[in-house]
Amino acid sequence: MSSNKLWGGRFQKQADELVDQFGASIAFDQELADEDLAGSLAHVKMLEKTKILSSPDVAKIVAGLEAIRSDLHAGKLKFTTTNEDIHMNIEQILTDRIGPVAGKLHTARSRNDQVATDFHLYLKRRLPKIIAEIRTVQETLVELAERHVTTIMPGYTHLQHAQPISYAHYLLAYYQMFKRDCERFEFNQQHVDLLPLGAAALAGTTFPIDRQFTARELGFSKVYENSLDAVSDRDFAVEFLSNSSLLLMHLSRFCEELSMWVSFEFNFLELSDAYTTGSSIMPQKKNPDMAELIRGKSGRVYGHLLALLSTLKSLPLAYNKDLQEDKEGVFDTVKTILPALRVFNGMIKTLTVKTNQMEQSTTNDLSNATELADYLAAKGVPFRKAHGIVGRLVLHCLQTKQNLQDLSLAELQAAAPEIEADVYHDLQPEVAVARRNSEGGTGFDQVRKQLARAKAELQTFQK
Amino acid sequence: MSSNKLWGGRFQKQADELVDQFGASIAFDQELADEDLAGSLAHVKMLEKTKILSSPDVAKIVAGLEAIRSDLHAGKLKFTTTNEDIHMNIEQILTDRIGPVAGKLHTARSRNDQVATDFHLYLKRRLPKIIAEIRTVQETLVELAERHVTTIMPGYTHLQHAQPISYAHYLLAYYQMFKRDCERFEFNQQHVDLLPLGAAALAGTTFPIDRQFTARELGFSKVYENSLDAVSDRDFAVEFLSNSSLLLMHLSRFCEELSMWVSFEFNFLELSDAYTTGSSIMPQKKNPDMAELIRGKSGRVYGHLLALLSTLKSLPLAYNKDLQEDKEGVFDTVKTILPALRVFNGMIKTLTVKTNQMEQSTTNDLSNATELADYLAAKGVPFRKAHGIVGRLVLHCLQTKQNLQDLSLAELQAAAPEIEADVYHDLQPEVAVARRNSEGGTGFDQVRKQLARAKAELQTFQK
Amino acid sequence: MSSNKLWGGRFQKQADELVDQFGASIAFDQELADEDLAGSLAHVKMLEKTKILSSPDVAKIVAGLEAIRSDLHAGKLKFTTTNEDIHMNIEQILTDRIGPVAGKLHTARSRNDQVATDFHLYLKRRLPKIIAEIRTVQETLVELAERHVTTIMPGYTHLQHAQPISYAHYLLAYYQMFKRDCERFEFNQQHVDLLPLGAAALAGTTFPIDRQFTARELGFSKVYENSLDAVSDRDFAVEFLSNSSLLLMHLSRFCEELSMWVSFEFNFLELSDAYTTGSSIMPQKKNPDMAELIRGKSGRVYGHLLALLSTLKSLPLAYNKDLQEDKEGVFDTVKTILPALRVFNGMIKTLTVKTNQMEQSTTNDLSNATELADYLAAKGVPFRKAHGIVGRLVLHCLQTKQNLQDLSLAELQAAAPEIEADVYHDLQPEVAVARRNSEGGTGFDQVRKQLARAKAELQTFQK
Amino acid sequence: MSSNKLWGGRFQKQADELVDQFGASIAFDQELADEDLAGSLAHVKMLEKTKILSSPDVAKIVAGLEAIRSDLHAGKLKFTTTNEDIHMNIEQILTDRIGPVAGKLHTARSRNDQVATDFHLYLKRRLPKIIAEIRTVQETLVELAERHVTTIMPGYTHLQHAQPISYAHYLLAYYQMFKRDCERFEFNQQHVDLLPLGAAALAGTTFPIDRQFTARELGFSKVYENSLDAVSDRDFAVEFLSNSSLLLMHLSRFCEELSMWVSFEFNFLELSDAYTTGSSIMPQKKNPDMAELIRGKSGRVYGHLLALLSTLKSLPLAYNKDLQEDKEGVFDTVKTILPALRVFNGMIKTLTVKTNQMEQSTTNDLSNATELADYLAAKGVPFRKAHGIVGRLVLHCLQTKQNLQDLSLAELQAAAPEIEADVYHDLQPEVAVARRNSEGGTGFDQVRKQLARAKAELQTFQK
Repeated sequence: MSSNKLWGGRFQKQADELVDQFGASIAFDQELADEDLAGSLAHVKMLEKTKILSSPDVAKIVAGLEAIRSDLHAGKLKFTTTNEDIHMNIEQILTDRIGPVAGKLHTARSRNDQVATDFHLYLKRRLPKIIAEIRTVQETLVELAERHVTTIMPGYTHLQHAQPISYAHYLLAYYQMFKRDCERFEFNQQHVDLLPLGAAALAGTTFPIDRQFTARELGFSKVYENSLDAVSDRDFAVEFLSNSSLLLMHLSRFCEELSMWVSFEFNFLELSDAYTTGSSIMPQKKNPDMAELIRGKSGRVYGHLLALLSTLKSLPLAYNKDLQEDKEGVFDTVKTILPALRVFNGMIKTLTVKTNQMEQSTTNDLSNATELADYLAAKGVPFRKAHGIVGRLVLHCLQTKQNLQDLSLAELQAAAPEIEADVYHDLQPEVAVARRNSEGGTGFDQVRKQLARAKAELQTFQK
Repeated sequence: MSSNKLWGGRFQKQADELVDQFGASIAFDQELADEDLAGSLAHVKMLEKTKILSSPDVAKIVAGLEAIRSDLHAGKLKFTTTNEDIHMNIEQILTDRIGPVAGKLHTARSRNDQVATDFHLYLKRRLPKIIAEIRTVQETLVELAERHVTTIMPGYTHLQHAQPISYAHYLLAYYQMFKRDCERFEFNQQHVDLLPLGAAALAGTTFPIDRQFTARELGFSKVYENSLDAVSDRDFAVEFLSNSSLLLMHLSRFCEELSMWVSFEFNFLELSDAYTTGSSIMPQKKNPDMAELIRGKSGRVYGHLLALLSTLKSLPLAYNKDLQEDKEGVFDTVKTILPALRVFNGMIKTLTVKTNQMEQSTTNDLSNATELADYLAAKGVPFRKAHGIVGRLVLHCLQTKQNLQDLSLAELQAAAPEIEADVYHDLQPEVAVARRNSEGGTGFDQVRKQLARAKAELQTFQK
Repeated sequence: MSSNKLWGGRFQKQADELVDQFGASIAFDQELADEDLAGSLAHVKMLEKTKILSSPDVAKIVAGLEAIRSDLHAGKLKFTTTNEDIHMNIEQILTDRIGPVAGKLHTARSRNDQVATDFHLYLKRRLPKIIAEIRTVQETLVELAERHVTTIMPGYTHLQHAQPISYAHYLLAYYQMFKRDCERFEFNQQHVDLLPLGAAALAGTTFPIDRQFTARELGFSKVYENSLDAVSDRDFAVEFLSNSSLLLMHLSRFCEELSMWVSFEFNFLELSDAYTTGSSIMPQKKNPDMAELIRGKSGRVYGHLLALLSTLKSLPLAYNKDLQEDKEGVFDTVKTILPALRVFNGMIKTLTVKTNQMEQSTTNDLSNATELADYLAAKGVPFRKAHGIVGRLVLHCLQTKQNLQDLSLAELQAAAPEIEADVYHDLQPEVAVARRNSEGGTGFDQVRKQLARAKAELQTFQK
Repeated sequence: MSSNKLWGGRFQKQADELVDQFGASIAFDQELADEDLAGSLAHVKMLEKTKILSSPDVAKIVAGLEAIRSDLHAGKLKFTTTNEDIHMNIEQILTDRIGPVAGKLHTARSRNDQVATDFHLYLKRRLPKIIAEIRTVQETLVELAERHVTTIMPGYTHLQHAQPISYAHYLLAYYQMFKRDCERFEFNQQHVDLLPLGAAALAGTTFPIDRQFTARELGFSKVYENSLDAVSDRDFAVEFLSNSSLLLMHLSRFCEELSMWVSFEFNFLELSDAYTTGSSIMPQKKNPDMAELIRGKSGRVYGHLLALLSTLKSLPLAYNKDLQEDKEGVFDTVKTILPALRVFNGMIKTLTVKTNQMEQSTTNDLSNATELADYLAAKGVPFRKAHGIVGRLVLHCLQTKQNLQDLSLAELQAAAPEIEADVYHDLQPEVAVARRNSEGGTGFDQVRKQLARAKAELQTFQK
């Protein structure tokens, strides 16, 4: 049934029902209801200000829209697929309520600039929430790091013990990643904070509209400078999906490590019962489901990014129906990253750090081999030669199931006469950590400086 | 509220509410309700057959499940997020209805093999429907082709007129693409038609189950040979998404051409009003929305493919919660391609071919240049030289706004004395088409052969 | 043969030859040779400044590195796969030339921070070149737009004639897209312009290095604040690939339109012979190969983006060999976008605009239907009703092969008595364009304002 | 310099040098040299057989092509970018050697069908090699599995100990994945094994060619049935990339586990020195580089898949220059998966299984909790209740750092009076494994059956 279609004169046949269903977007674009109402309210006020519409007409429309908004917030609004999208749904409801004057709302605009406006406004409102959730995660990381400056754990490369590090140093590496994530979403806001409204179908309008007024009403800093660009640009959405992909990539790395570190074999961390699940079969199971789910969801967001890029590829200007595919991936991404960040935050806020296990892992291993090589280098042995000596000692230790500090001074001196009793001091993990005190290194002093800087940064944000 | 969690003894804290929500899959896996019931019915009958459960117990469970199935089909079943997934929802409903005996249904199985079974069954049931829709499209193409064997249009390379071809030949190129699509979905069925049930959590079960019996009950040809593989394999879903990506790629190519061919400039085709939309602003608009939307949806399906591949990357065996991300993309793809195929079919079934426009386009152009070069080659002029002669004639035509057949014999002979009056015969598009009669070529005889073969192929399929 | 391996003591067996080949990166990371030398030079000067190395040693190393750099620039340097990567190649060459003192160069650094530094420096140097090429394209667009402010063409939505627009307006839409591309690459520079050197293997170093000194030497504004992050971060490369994907997406849209507009059917543009190719078979062909190739390359760059995101997914800290996969996609992208931009620029700089064809296309069509509806609305007919009236007139025109302006006043008045003789003025395309004078619209005044702004913006850039 | 261009008459200007470089494909399509020669040889023999060319001409061309082939195999052939692609390079070399008769080789074919033929032939020849390498990996897995039927390790879900399993069972799960990979590449061969030659530019040819003859000469089973499809189809390449993505996904899962299992914490496996690398800084390091690199390369291949799908999206028929982007990703994938499979095979063939560590890991954990619950269930305790009892015992064990078998019978009976002394038998890992003897389960008998089947399957393949 197409009686409510906004066109007609040129057409001799109704749309096939299948076509109506396939083309309808109301199932997902109702997400934009509040933004659509806000956009219409700003638009109609501009139409009054520019005298395109009379004040009494505008008053009726404003009252109608505000009543609809109240109903929306109260969960009382019903949408139908007969009206294919959110714009036509709201226009129809408005018409049902205030009569034909409702039709004047659509003066000097088109659904092309309207939907672009709704979409911009949608992201404009969500970006600060996303940034705030990331900040919360950063705060939690900093709190945890503060408690663990001197907690020593094995630092890994290639998932092999490399050199002992401070657990706080590890946590602050993620602080930096999330900081870049915030910077990217803030940059994204620049291209989100651009008003398309006024571009009309593609070419602007013959009405004497005032786009700056509408922008101010809606809180936009700027308007699109070119009407064709305004209705066909989706860069801001691609940027959002790319930034979200990076965010989830970071989360996936942490969650991967978490999943390993709560394993029987690593046993470095324990999750709160509240952030794990069990098994209906195996009574001993305590699964880090949330970490796995967050990790798995990175694929989902990558997929949305690719989908939009593919859809936009080689699309002629200006609006094409392909662009209807722009929204679901973005909505789903917002609904993925907000709870993912909250769950992630709760999970790390409540985790137990098994400091003994971590530290034991660095005293029972050979990750102090670099220290011994450095020790020899400091005694004047060329590093390359020192490396070879220590390599052979490592092999000996592996074959005899010992660690370097277990070897007697005589054994060590047999390998390198330069070694003296003070070597045992250098072989201690805490000494190894403390000495890596170069800028940005894991040395305790450096970690404390990182922490201080992080706390200062976090204080500058208002939430 | 976790009172209904299937574990407990080991846990001292309830799951956080956010965790329950984030982890719940009932919002989308209710799509599997019918498959889950079918799987449970087959499973419980097997438990009776192997005497693991008693016949009276099984009778109660079967009756309960069948009643639930009736309610499901009647649209009367309600699911809750308190029970995180479809399996727990159905188990809870069953328990509410028949009491604790419901618990016995879960004997000798785990949700890991259960969900894999549901997912296999889901695709096993959808693949034939998808194949049938593709066959319908192939039939429509063949019908259309039959009416247009002698309709001549410009054949394009680089979107430039290359050589005239039969429109039927063009349509049958797509017939071939869709034929390969069917072959791929049929191959996919081999890996879909494998029963995971009986793998239990990951390692098989201690109960004397009979997996072959369950397989027969559910119509599966084979069972997974390795229980770890059974619960962690998602190859069949990736295959499905890859096949669907290719299908949509083919559709996108046709739709791209359709979108151009209904343009003011090409004007080769006209879509039925029923498969187009208008504009609320511009009264003259008749937009090929459906073609654009199908084209745009290729990005969506590509995205689902990437998402699943990314999620599966470097995932340790056997089940991990990341795998929960496997379903939504597949469900959405099924819900995308079925209506896309139906809409596509309706759209081409009802389109008007403007044969005059097509043919005129080949008589007013220079796409018979190859004919002239071939003509000269047949007269003994080396092809490379003939190509040069014709190239210069083309340039002359462009500069004087003529076509080759407009040149007088004298003019032609000035360029190449070998040319005689019979050249005008060869320059006609229909002659050019007819003569390209090599196997698989556009020659009318060849096209008729292709058509006959296509019709024979389509007749071998039962729908 | 692993005699030159930098480890040894711990190993009892040589690497398999296949392993050496599979793991070697010299085939592609030799692209970083100049950056690697620059990084080493800065590093060794820092080692002198901090007295970690003696001035005579540093002098020898600097002289050696500079000689190698001269040979590199002269194309005289040879790399071998025996030395698996660029770092070991250069170190080996240095050792061959200046003897064991070369070994001291590697003091207080690791290949983990070294390769990250090279990679940052590589992009730091390329980004300004990329931005400059985009600016050149913007300048060409502006030049072309200046000549075509009053050239009228059909504006499209859904590839259907929508409303007439200025060709300059169309060109300036792309100006805006490229402006955002520049902004993104400039933002990217913030995360590229961060020095990893000094992070050593993962944890910093025990030597008293001065990272700020090294940063200044290399022209970096900041250093990474966390050593783990420094060696494992590849955000800057993902940002680059994402930005490049958007850039190519924009190019692909223009190229798609170009490919259509040079077709026989559109015939709006003609490319210079120098930017097209012919066919070895069809003498009349003139193919827009370059436009197609640029369009096709968007897939390539999308692929690189998704490859890197997938590789980074769930990778534990800090360095893992997977990260070796980060470079080829980025190098290939640089080598794709720089020539693509140059070819694109040459192609549009030399194209011929067939203004008559464009304009004729807007006078022979029905894209002035909106004008008629607006005309009626201005006469007091509610827009929705006006739309219906015009729609029916459009249908009549289509059936009788006329345009709206071909209808007599009597015919028009029969449809709507409000119509007067002045309607014919409004139905002219140039009037329609001129009147769409809202901010950012296609009205000639607006286009001139856009042009003036664009020229001012371009002048602020130094190249 | 375009003097050698195959067109000319129509063009008044040479191609810009930048255009020649950007458009040239010889840098990568020289990979097809041998296939191009094979295709030309078959084509020219067909031209003789059909009397399109004379035998003396054909003899000269055949001799020329064979001489070129000898030079190619001897590594003596030089290609130039002046001749943009492999086809023109070889044609030019042939012309230089045998004079103008070389030009007749191109009779009745175009570069469009020629390149498609080369590409098909390229994959047709590589697929059997790839399948053979996968079979070799399967054989290695089976050999390893044969030695480890009774080696017990923890089976994981969620990376938590779930139930003990046989290590052979784990290995055979991968056997199944690789079996499906082979099936997919074999299916792919069906669409690869189709000859495009004879389609000419797009429409077939006027010459009386014999495509079946050419197909037989080249070993193709079938020819493309539609010439437009023949030159524009790249499904077979997408299939190949999709299959390769799945193959690498499987490898990435194994490599991920390998990387964990050689870690200090897991310590289940040790790689041969020949398949690891060390560190230039840390003398103790032994890194599983090869496993990481293979894992990382999955992203690369995913990228190639998505690149090709994106490039093909909405591409009009028939040939467009975008299609030139089809080859590099495929070539790179072949060059990635062949060595990856070989390195992977060598790596697992030489690894040391630390059976003690694996087994110890299952005796010191709580993965026998399911056994206890099953034991209680067998004694008549409803499973859900048994699960709760065992869960509480698990919690007690965790708090007191014991395992279930460490509890005294009195303690166990206090929790559940049904427990008797025979429970300790059931709690042994080997008993737990043996009892999971359902079809496809980890029970030793089942594993031996899987092994026997796998060996039988492998014997049916000829290599």
